Amino acid sequence: MNSGRLDIIGLGPGPQEWLTLETPQILAQASDLIGYGPYLDRLPLGAGQTRHASDNGAEIPRARHGLELAAKGAHVAVVSGGDPGVFAMAAAVFEALEHGEAKWRDIEIAVHPGVSAMLAAAARLGAPLGHDFCVLSLSDNLKPWGLIETRLRAAAAGDFVIAIYNPASKARPALIHDAFALLRELKPPETIVGFARAVGRKDEKLTLTTLSEANPALADMSTLVLIGAHATRGFEARGRRWIYTPRGSEAR
Amino acid sequence: MNSGRLDIIGLGPGPQEWLTLETPQILAQASDLIGYGPYLDRLPLGAGQTRHASDNGAEIPRARHGLELAAKGAHVAVVSGGDPGVFAMAAAVFEALEHGEAKWRDIEIAVHPGVSAMLAAAARLGAPLGHDFCVLSLSDNLKPWGLIETRLRAAAAGDFVIAIYNPASKARPALIHDAFALLRELKPPETIVGFARAVGRKDEKLTLTTLSEANPALADMSTLVLIGAHATRGFEARGRRWIYTPRGSEAR
Repeated sequence: MNSGRLDIIGLGPGPQEWLTLETPQILAQASDLIGYGPYLDRLPLGAGQTRHASDNGAEIPRARHGLELAAKGAHVAVVSGGDPGVFAMAAAVFEALEHGEAKWRDIEIAVHPGVSAMLAAAARLGAPLGHDFCVLSLSDNLKPWGLIETRLRAAAAGDFVIAIYNPASKARPALIHDAFALLRELKPPETIVGFARAVGRKDEKLTLTTLSEANPALADMSTLVLIGAHATRGFEARGRRWIYTPRGSEAR
Repeated sequence: MNSGRLDIIGLGPGPQEWLTLETPQILAQASDLIGYGPYLDRLPLGAGQTRHASDNGAEIPRARHGLELAAKGAHVAVVSGGDPGVFAMAAAVFEALEHGEAKWRDIEIAVHPGVSAMLAAAARLGAPLGHDFCVLSLSDNLKPWGLIETRLRAAAAGDFVIAIYNPASKARPALIHDAFALLRELKPPETIVGFARAVGRKDEKLTLTTLSEANPALADMSTLVLIGAHATRGFEARGRRWIYTPRGSEAR
Protein backbone atom coordinates (compact mmCIF):
# COMPACT_ATOMS: atom_id res chain seq x y z
CA MET A 1 0.00 0.00 0.00
CA ASN A 2 1.29 3.44 -0.84
CA SER A 3 2.04 5.82 1.97
CA GLY A 4 -0.23 8.81 2.10
CA ARG A 5 0.28 12.39 3.00
CA LEU A 6 0.14 14.41 6.20
CA ASP A 7 -0.38 18.18 6.23
CA ILE A 8 0.11 20.05 9.49
CA ILE A 9 -1.93 23.21 9.48
CA GLY A 10 -3.12 26.02 11.77
CA LEU A 11 -6.46 27.82 11.87
CA GLY A 12 -5.17 31.06 13.34
CA PRO A 13 -6.48 32.45 16.63
CA GLY A 14 -10.17 32.32 15.74
CA PRO A 15 -11.89 34.11 12.90
CA GLN A 16 -12.04 32.71 9.38
CA GLU A 17 -10.53 35.94 7.99
CA TRP A 18 -7.16 35.09 9.60
CA LEU A 19 -6.78 31.76 7.80
CA THR A 20 -4.18 31.81 5.05
CA LEU A 21 -5.46 31.57 1.47
CA GLU A 22 -4.09 28.04 1.06
CA THR A 23 -5.74 26.67 4.22
CA PRO A 24 -9.29 26.00 2.93
CA GLN A 25 -7.84 24.22 -0.14
CA ILE A 26 -5.54 22.01 1.90
CA LEU A 27 -8.33 21.10 4.31
CA ALA A 28 -10.68 20.31 1.42
CA GLN A 29 -8.16 17.85 -0.06
CA ALA A 30 -7.76 15.84 3.13
CA SER A 31 -9.52 12.52 3.66
CA ASP A 32 -9.06 12.67 7.43
CA LEU A 33 -9.05 15.68 9.77
CA ILE A 34 -7.38 15.22 13.15
CA GLY A 35 -7.36 17.72 16.00
CA TYR A 36 -8.73 19.01 19.25
CA GLY A 37 -12.54 18.88 19.01
CA PRO A 38 -13.28 22.64 19.21
CA TYR A 39 -10.84 23.34 16.35
CA LEU A 40 -12.45 20.72 14.12
CA ASP A 41 -15.88 22.12 14.97
CA ARG A 42 -14.91 25.35 13.22
CA LEU A 43 -14.50 23.56 9.88
CA PRO A 44 -17.09 22.61 7.28
CA LEU A 45 -17.05 18.83 6.79
CA GLY A 46 -16.50 17.88 3.16
CA ALA A 47 -18.07 14.90 1.41
CA GLY A 48 -16.16 11.72 2.22
CA GLN A 49 -14.12 13.35 4.98
CA THR A 50 -13.72 11.76 8.39
CA ARG A 51 -13.11 13.74 11.56
CA HIS A 52 -11.09 12.40 14.44
CA ALA A 53 -11.65 14.75 17.36
CA SER A 54 -9.49 14.31 20.42
CA ASP A 55 -9.28 15.90 23.85
CA ASN A 56 -6.92 18.74 24.58
CA GLY A 57 -3.45 17.58 25.57
CA ALA A 58 -2.57 14.05 24.43
CA GLU A 59 -0.67 15.54 21.52
CA ILE A 60 1.72 12.66 20.91
CA PRO A 61 -1.04 10.03 20.73
CA ARG A 62 -2.94 12.35 18.34
CA ALA A 63 0.18 12.73 16.19
CA ARG A 64 0.72 8.93 16.16
CA HIS A 65 -2.89 8.44 15.10
CA GLY A 66 -2.39 10.79 12.16
CA LEU A 67 0.83 9.06 11.12
CA GLU A 68 -0.83 5.62 11.33
CA LEU A 69 -3.65 6.75 9.05
CA ALA A 70 -1.26 8.38 6.57
CA ALA A 71 0.93 5.26 6.52
CA LYS A 72 -2.16 3.34 5.37
CA GLY A 73 -2.60 5.73 2.45
CA ALA A 74 -4.87 8.42 3.91
CA HIS A 75 -4.44 12.12 3.22
CA VAL A 76 -4.42 13.47 6.76
CA ALA A 77 -4.67 17.07 7.91
CA VAL A 78 -3.52 17.58 11.50
CA VAL A 79 -5.19 20.78 12.66
CA SER A 80 -3.95 23.22 15.32
CA GLY A 81 -5.19 26.58 16.46
CA GLY A 82 -2.90 29.53 15.67
CA ASP A 83 0.30 28.56 13.88
CA PRO A 84 1.00 24.80 14.01
CA GLY A 85 4.68 25.37 14.77
CA VAL A 86 4.33 27.46 17.94
CA PHE A 87 3.43 25.36 21.01
CA ALA A 88 1.22 23.24 18.79
CA MET A 89 0.99 20.04 16.76
CA ALA A 90 3.98 20.29 14.39
CA ALA A 91 6.57 19.45 17.06
CA ALA A 92 4.38 16.59 18.32
CA VAL A 93 4.17 15.08 14.82
CA PHE A 94 7.94 15.22 14.33
CA GLU A 95 8.56 13.77 17.79
CA ALA A 96 6.14 10.92 17.06
CA LEU A 97 7.72 10.42 13.64
CA GLU A 98 11.30 10.28 14.93
CA HIS A 99 10.45 7.71 17.59
CA GLY A 100 7.76 5.85 15.63
CA GLU A 101 7.57 3.06 13.08
CA ALA A 102 10.16 3.03 10.29
CA LYS A 103 7.51 2.98 7.55
CA TRP A 104 6.10 6.29 8.77
CA ARG A 105 9.19 7.96 7.29
CA ASP A 106 7.80 7.28 3.80
CA ILE A 107 4.85 9.61 4.43
CA GLU A 108 4.95 12.89 2.55
CA ILE A 109 4.77 15.63 5.22
CA ALA A 110 4.36 19.39 4.98
CA VAL A 111 3.91 22.08 7.62
CA HIS A 112 1.87 25.16 6.64
CA PRO A 113 2.40 28.38 8.59
CA GLY A 114 -0.48 30.31 10.13
CA VAL A 115 -1.18 33.39 12.23
CA SER A 116 0.03 32.71 15.75
CA ALA A 117 -1.92 34.09 18.72
CA MET A 118 0.84 36.49 19.72
CA LEU A 119 0.71 38.22 16.33
CA ALA A 120 -3.05 38.72 16.56
CA ALA A 121 -2.84 39.88 20.18
CA ALA A 122 -0.04 42.29 19.31
CA ALA A 123 -2.05 43.67 16.36
CA ARG A 124 -5.05 44.38 18.57
CA LEU A 125 -2.89 46.15 21.16
CA GLY A 126 -0.74 48.14 18.69
CA ALA A 127 2.80 46.93 18.00
CA PRO A 128 4.30 45.59 21.24
CA LEU A 129 6.38 43.00 19.30
CA GLY A 130 7.97 45.73 17.17
CA HIS A 131 11.36 44.92 18.61
CA ASP A 132 13.23 41.96 20.15
CA PHE A 133 11.01 39.59 22.11
CA CYS A 134 10.83 36.22 23.88
CA VAL A 135 7.99 33.72 23.78
CA LEU A 136 7.24 31.27 26.61
CA SER A 137 4.54 28.72 27.30
CA LEU A 138 3.45 27.94 30.85
CA SER A 139 1.24 25.04 29.86
CA ASP A 140 3.68 22.20 30.04
CA ASN A 141 2.96 20.22 33.18
CA LEU A 142 6.38 18.59 33.11
CA LYS A 143 8.28 21.85 32.90
CA PRO A 144 9.91 22.47 36.29
CA TRP A 145 9.45 25.88 37.90
CA GLY A 146 13.25 26.17 37.93
CA LEU A 147 13.35 26.24 34.12
CA ILE A 148 10.50 28.75 33.92
CA GLU A 149 12.33 30.93 36.45
CA THR A 150 15.60 30.67 34.52
CA ARG A 151 13.86 31.73 31.31
CA LEU A 152 11.93 34.61 32.88
CA ARG A 153 15.16 35.86 34.50
CA ALA A 154 16.95 35.60 31.14
CA ALA A 155 14.12 37.39 29.33
CA ALA A 156 14.22 40.19 31.90
CA ALA A 157 18.03 40.38 31.81
CA GLY A 158 17.89 40.76 28.02
CA ASP A 159 15.13 43.39 28.32
CA PHE A 160 13.08 41.45 25.79
CA VAL A 161 9.36 42.01 25.38
CA ILE A 162 7.83 38.79 26.77
CA ALA A 163 4.85 36.95 25.28
CA ILE A 164 3.36 34.22 27.50
CA TYR A 165 1.18 31.50 25.95
CA ASN A 166 -1.13 29.22 27.94
CA PRO A 167 -0.67 31.21 31.13
CA ALA A 168 -3.25 29.37 33.21
CA SER A 169 -2.79 25.63 33.36
CA LYS A 170 -5.62 23.81 35.11
CA ALA A 171 -3.06 21.59 36.75
CA ARG A 172 -0.91 24.51 37.90
CA PRO A 173 -3.08 27.62 38.35
CA ALA A 174 -0.53 29.29 40.66
CA LEU A 175 2.13 29.42 37.94
CA ILE A 176 1.11 32.75 36.39
CA HIS A 177 0.94 34.32 39.87
CA ASP A 178 4.45 33.04 40.62
CA ALA A 179 5.63 34.33 37.24
CA PHE A 180 4.26 37.82 37.94
CA ALA A 181 5.77 37.82 41.45
CA LEU A 182 9.17 37.04 39.93
CA LEU A 183 8.84 39.62 37.14
CA ARG A 184 7.93 42.29 39.72
CA GLU A 185 11.32 41.67 41.34
CA LEU A 186 13.12 41.93 38.01
CA LYS A 187 11.41 44.72 36.06
CA PRO A 188 10.23 48.27 36.83
CA PRO A 189 6.70 48.65 38.28
CA GLU A 190 5.62 50.88 35.38
CA THR A 191 6.42 48.16 32.80
CA ILE A 192 3.50 47.90 30.38
CA VAL A 193 1.43 44.71 30.62
CA GLY A 194 -1.30 43.59 28.25
CA PHE A 195 -3.81 40.75 28.58
CA ALA A 196 -5.38 39.80 25.24
CA ARG A 197 -8.18 37.30 25.76
CA ALA A 198 -9.98 35.41 22.94
CA VAL A 199 -8.54 37.73 20.28
CA GLY A 200 -10.69 37.91 17.15
CA ARG A 201 -13.59 36.13 18.82
CA LYS A 202 -16.88 37.49 20.14
CA ASP A 203 -15.71 37.47 23.73
CA GLU A 204 -12.44 39.28 22.97
CA LYS A 205 -11.21 41.32 25.92
CA LEU A 206 -8.13 43.55 25.94
CA THR A 207 -6.66 44.86 29.19
CA LEU A 208 -3.72 47.25 29.35
CA THR A 209 -2.11 47.93 32.70
CA THR A 210 1.29 48.01 34.41
CA LEU A 211 3.34 45.31 36.05
CA SER A 212 2.65 46.70 39.52
CA GLU A 213 -1.12 46.87 38.97
CA ALA A 214 -1.66 43.78 36.80
CA ASN A 215 -3.99 41.10 38.14
CA PRO A 216 -2.58 37.74 37.01
CA ALA A 217 -6.01 36.18 37.57
CA LEU A 218 -7.13 37.90 34.32
CA ALA A 219 -5.09 35.31 32.43
CA ASP A 220 -7.07 32.21 31.55
CA MET A 221 -6.17 29.58 28.93
CA SER A 222 -7.55 31.81 26.15
CA THR A 223 -5.30 34.70 27.12
CA LEU A 224 -2.02 35.83 25.64
CA VAL A 225 -0.02 37.89 28.15
CA LEU A 226 2.41 40.54 26.89
CA ILE A 227 4.98 42.18 29.17
CA GLY A 228 6.82 45.17 27.77
CA ALA A 229 10.51 45.96 27.52
CA HIS A 230 11.89 49.22 28.93
CA ALA A 231 11.27 50.83 25.54
CA THR A 232 7.62 49.73 25.23
CA ARG A 233 5.36 52.79 25.36
CA GLY A 234 1.66 53.57 25.49
CA PHE A 235 -0.54 56.50 24.44
CA GLU A 236 -4.17 57.34 23.74
CA ALA A 237 -5.89 58.07 20.43
CA ARG A 238 -9.58 58.11 19.52
CA GLY A 239 -10.51 57.14 23.07
CA ARG A 240 -8.46 53.99 23.24
CA ARG A 241 -4.94 53.08 24.31
CA TRP A 242 -2.23 51.71 22.01
CA ILE A 243 1.12 50.21 23.00
CA TYR A 244 4.21 49.74 20.85
CA THR A 245 7.92 48.98 21.06
CA PRO A 246 9.96 51.29 18.83
CA ARG A 247 12.87 49.95 16.81
CA GLY A 248 15.23 52.76 17.62
CA SER A 249 15.94 53.08 13.92
CA GLU A 250 18.28 55.60 12.36
CA ALA A 251 15.42 56.43 9.99
CA ARG A 252 13.59 58.39 12.68
CA MET B 1 -12.59 67.47 6.30
CA ASN B 2 -13.19 64.07 7.83
CA SER B 3 -10.25 62.00 8.91
CA GLY B 4 -9.72 58.85 6.94
CA ARG B 5 -8.59 55.40 7.83
CA LEU B 6 -5.23 53.66 8.01
CA ASP B 7 -4.85 49.87 7.81
CA ILE B 8 -1.48 48.34 8.63
CA ILE B 9 -1.12 45.04 6.87
CA GLY B 10 1.45 42.35 6.06
CA LEU B 11 1.88 40.29 2.89
CA GLY B 12 3.56 37.31 4.54
CA PRO B 13 7.03 36.12 3.49
CA GLY B 14 6.33 35.86 -0.21
CA PRO B 15 3.75 33.68 -1.91
CA GLN B 16 0.15 34.75 -2.34
CA GLU B 17 -1.04 31.55 -0.63
CA TRP B 18 0.28 32.82 2.73
CA LEU B 19 -1.80 36.00 2.72
CA THR B 20 -4.69 35.93 5.17
CA LEU B 21 -8.19 35.74 3.71
CA GLU B 22 -8.96 39.33 4.74
CA THR B 23 -5.85 40.82 3.13
CA PRO B 24 -6.99 41.07 -0.52
CA GLN B 25 -10.27 42.71 0.62
CA ILE B 26 -8.55 45.26 2.82
CA LEU B 27 -6.08 46.15 0.08
CA ALA B 28 -8.89 46.49 -2.48
CA GLN B 29 -10.72 49.00 -0.27
CA ALA B 30 -7.72 51.32 0.13
CA SER B 31 -7.37 54.51 -1.89
CA ASP B 32 -3.63 54.73 -1.24
CA LEU B 33 -1.05 51.95 -0.86
CA ILE B 34 2.17 52.83 0.94
CA GLY B 35 5.22 50.64 1.34
CA TYR B 36 8.63 49.52 0.24
CA GLY B 37 8.58 49.29 -3.57
CA PRO B 38 9.14 45.52 -3.98
CA TYR B 39 6.23 44.78 -1.63
CA LEU B 40 3.87 47.06 -3.58
CA ASP B 41 5.03 45.45 -6.82
CA ARG B 42 3.49 42.17 -5.66
CA LEU B 43 0.02 43.70 -5.56
CA PRO B 44 -2.52 44.20 -8.35
CA LEU B 45 -3.32 47.90 -8.68
CA GLY B 46 -7.04 48.57 -8.38
CA ALA B 47 -8.93 51.26 -10.29
CA GLY B 48 -8.50 54.64 -8.65
CA GLN B 49 -5.75 53.43 -6.34
CA THR B 50 -2.50 55.33 -5.90
CA ARG B 51 0.78 53.70 -4.97
CA HIS B 52 3.42 55.44 -2.94
CA ALA B 53 6.57 53.32 -3.15
CA SER B 54 9.46 54.22 -0.90
CA ASP B 55 12.97 52.96 -0.36
CA ASN B 56 13.79 50.41 2.26
CA GLY B 57 14.49 51.91 5.66
CA ALA B 58 13.02 55.40 6.14
CA GLU B 59 10.15 53.81 8.05
CA ILE B 60 9.18 56.82 10.15
CA PRO B 61 8.93 59.19 7.15
CA ARG B 62 6.86 56.52 5.36
CA ALA B 63 4.59 56.21 8.39
CA ARG B 64 4.20 60.01 8.59
CA HIS B 65 3.31 60.12 4.91
CA GLY B 66 0.54 57.57 5.49
CA LEU B 67 -0.81 59.46 8.48
CA GLU B 68 -0.80 62.75 6.53
CA LEU B 69 -2.81 61.21 3.70
CA ALA B 70 -5.28 59.57 6.10
CA ALA B 71 -5.69 62.84 8.01
CA LYS B 72 -6.84 64.39 4.71
CA GLY B 73 -9.51 61.73 4.32
CA ALA B 74 -7.71 58.99 2.39
CA HIS B 75 -8.13 55.30 3.10
CA VAL B 76 -4.51 54.27 3.43
CA ALA B 77 -3.04 50.76 3.53
CA VAL B 78 0.50 50.67 4.91
CA VAL B 79 2.02 47.46 3.57
CA SER B 80 4.80 45.38 5.16
CA GLY B 81 6.27 42.02 4.28
CA GLY B 82 5.61 39.22 6.77
CA ASP B 83 3.59 40.30 9.79
CA PRO B 84 3.37 44.09 10.16
CA GLY B 85 3.95 43.91 13.92
CA VAL B 86 7.31 42.08 13.89
CA PHE B 87 10.25 44.37 12.97
CA ALA B 88 7.99 46.09 10.48
CA MET B 89 5.71 49.07 9.87
CA ALA B 90 3.21 48.87 12.75
CA ALA B 91 5.64 50.14 15.38
CA ALA B 92 6.78 52.91 13.01
CA VAL B 93 3.19 54.08 12.50
CA PHE B 94 2.50 54.22 16.24
CA GLU B 95 5.79 56.01 16.89
CA ALA B 96 4.96 58.58 14.21
CA LEU B 97 1.43 58.91 15.56
CA GLU B 98 2.50 59.46 19.17
CA HIS B 99 4.98 62.17 18.24
CA GLY B 100 3.03 63.62 15.33
CA GLU B 101 0.25 66.16 14.74
CA ALA B 102 -2.66 66.15 17.18
CA LYS B 103 -5.23 65.76 14.41
CA TRP B 104 -3.66 62.46 13.35
CA ARG B 105 -5.17 60.91 16.49
CA ASP B 106 -8.63 61.16 14.89
CA ILE B 107 -7.65 58.66 12.19
CA GLU B 108 -9.24 55.24 12.48
CA ILE B 109 -6.37 52.77 12.68
CA ALA B 110 -6.27 48.97 12.57
CA VAL B 111 -3.40 46.48 12.50
CA HIS B 112 -4.01 43.17 10.70
CA PRO B 113 -1.82 40.19 11.60
CA GLY B 114 0.03 38.16 8.98
CA VAL B 115 2.42 35.24 8.65
CA SER B 116 5.80 36.31 9.98
CA ALA B 117 8.98 35.05 8.30
CA MET B 118 10.02 32.98 11.32
CA LEU B 119 6.80 30.96 11.15
CA ALA B 120 7.28 30.17 7.47
CA ALA B 121 10.98 29.35 7.96
CA ALA B 122 10.14 27.10 10.91
CA ALA B 123 7.43 25.32 8.89
CA ARG B 124 9.87 24.56 6.07
CA LEU B 125 12.47 23.21 8.50
CA GLY B 126 10.07 21.22 10.69
CA ALA B 127 9.07 22.64 14.08
CA PRO B 128 12.09 24.37 15.62
CA LEU B 129 9.82 26.93 17.36
CA GLY B 130 7.84 24.18 19.08
CA HIS B 131 9.02 25.39 22.46
CA ASP B 132 10.20 28.61 24.15
CA PHE B 133 12.09 30.95 21.83
CA CYS B 134 13.57 34.45 21.42
CA VAL B 135 13.42 36.68 18.37
CA LEU B 136 16.06 39.30 17.56
CA SER B 137 16.70 41.65 14.69
CA LEU B 138 20.22 42.66 13.71
CA SER B 139 19.12 45.28 11.20
CA ASP B 140 18.91 48.33 13.39
CA ASN B 141 21.91 50.51 12.66
CA LEU B 142 21.51 52.39 15.93
CA LYS B 143 21.49 49.28 18.09
CA PRO B 144 24.79 49.10 19.92
CA TRP B 145 26.72 45.81 19.84
CA GLY B 146 26.57 45.84 23.64
CA LEU B 147 22.77 45.45 23.56
CA ILE B 148 22.95 42.70 20.94
CA GLU B 149 25.55 40.92 23.06
CA THR B 150 23.41 41.27 26.20
CA ARG B 151 20.40 39.79 24.41
CA LEU B 152 22.32 36.91 22.81
CA ARG B 153 23.84 36.09 26.22
CA ALA B 154 20.40 36.19 27.81
CA ALA B 155 18.89 34.03 25.07
CA ALA B 156 21.68 31.48 25.55
CA ALA B 157 21.40 31.60 29.36
CA GLY B 158 17.68 30.88 29.06
CA ASP B 159 18.35 28.06 26.55
CA PHE B 160 15.79 29.58 24.22
CA VAL B 161 15.62 28.70 20.55
CA ILE B 162 16.83 31.89 18.80
CA ALA B 163 15.36 33.35 15.61
CA ILE B 164 17.42 36.12 14.00
CA TYR B 165 15.78 38.51 11.52
CA ASN B 166 17.69 40.75 9.12
CA PRO B 167 21.02 39.10 9.91
CA ALA B 168 23.07 40.90 7.28
CA SER B 169 22.88 44.66 7.43
CA LYS B 170 24.61 46.40 4.52
CA ALA B 171 25.93 48.95 6.97
CA ARG B 172 27.18 46.33 9.42
CA PRO B 173 28.02 43.11 7.54
CA ALA B 174 30.31 41.85 10.33
CA LEU B 175 27.47 41.70 12.86
CA ILE B 176 26.28 38.18 12.06
CA HIS B 177 29.87 36.92 12.21
CA ASP B 178 30.31 38.54 15.63
CA ALA B 179 26.99 37.04 16.74
CA PHE B 180 28.06 33.54 15.72
CA ALA B 181 31.45 33.98 17.39
CA LEU B 182 29.71 34.90 20.64
CA LEU B 183 27.16 32.07 20.40
CA ARG B 184 30.00 29.57 19.85
CA GLU B 185 31.37 30.62 23.25
CA LEU B 186 27.97 30.21 24.90
CA LYS B 187 26.36 27.14 23.35
CA PRO B 188 27.52 23.56 22.51
CA PRO B 189 29.19 23.04 19.11
CA GLU B 190 26.54 20.46 18.11
CA THR B 191 23.70 23.00 18.53
CA ILE B 192 21.42 22.80 15.48
CA VAL B 193 21.51 25.83 13.16
CA GLY B 194 19.22 26.52 10.22
CA PHE B 195 19.45 29.14 7.49
CA ALA B 196 16.14 29.67 5.69
CA ARG B 197 16.60 31.95 2.69
CA ALA B 198 13.75 33.42 0.59
CA VAL B 199 11.22 31.04 2.11
CA GLY B 200 8.24 30.39 -0.15
CA ARG B 201 9.91 32.06 -3.13
CA LYS B 202 11.51 30.54 -6.22
CA ASP B 203 15.01 30.99 -4.90
CA GLU B 204 14.24 29.39 -1.51
CA LYS B 205 17.27 27.73 0.04
CA LEU B 206 17.30 25.78 3.30
CA THR B 207 20.56 24.87 5.04
CA LEU B 208 20.75 22.75 8.19
CA THR B 209 24.04 22.52 10.02
CA THR B 210 25.57 22.86 13.47
CA LEU B 211 26.86 25.87 15.38
CA SER B 212 30.48 24.73 14.97
CA GLU B 213 30.13 24.21 11.22
CA ALA B 214 27.75 27.03 10.30
CA ASN B 215 28.99 29.61 7.82
CA PRO B 216 27.51 32.98 8.87
CA ALA B 217 28.12 34.29 5.34
CA LEU B 218 25.12 32.19 4.24
CA ALA B 219 22.90 34.77 5.94
CA ASP B 220 21.86 37.62 3.67
CA MET B 221 19.00 40.07 4.18
CA SER B 222 16.49 37.51 2.85
CA THR B 223 17.57 34.90 5.39
CA LEU B 224 16.02 33.92 8.71
CA VAL B 225 18.57 32.26 11.00
CA LEU B 226 17.40 29.71 13.58
CA ILE B 227 19.65 28.50 16.38
CA GLY B 228 18.40 25.58 18.42
CA ALA B 229 18.03 25.06 22.15
CA HIS B 230 19.62 22.05 23.86
CA ALA B 231 16.41 20.12 23.22
CA THR B 232 16.23 20.88 19.48
CA ARG B 233 16.73 17.67 17.50
CA GLY B 234 17.13 16.61 13.89
CA PHE B 235 16.44 13.43 11.92
CA GLU B 236 16.03 12.23 8.33
CA ALA B 237 12.93 11.06 6.52
CA ARG B 238 12.23 10.66 2.81
CA GLY B 239 15.72 11.83 1.99
CA ARG B 240 15.52 15.15 3.75
CA ARG B 241 16.30 16.43 7.23
CA TRP B 242 13.74 17.82 9.69
CA ILE B 243 14.41 19.68 12.95
CA TYR B 244 12.06 20.21 15.88
CA THR B 245 12.00 21.30 19.50
CA PRO B 246 9.85 18.97 21.62
CA ARG B 247 7.56 20.38 24.28
CA GLY B 248 8.48 17.85 26.94
CA SER B 249 4.78 17.34 27.53
CA GLU B 250 3.31 14.89 30.02
CA ALA B 251 1.06 13.72 27.17
CA ARG B 252 3.91 11.78 25.55
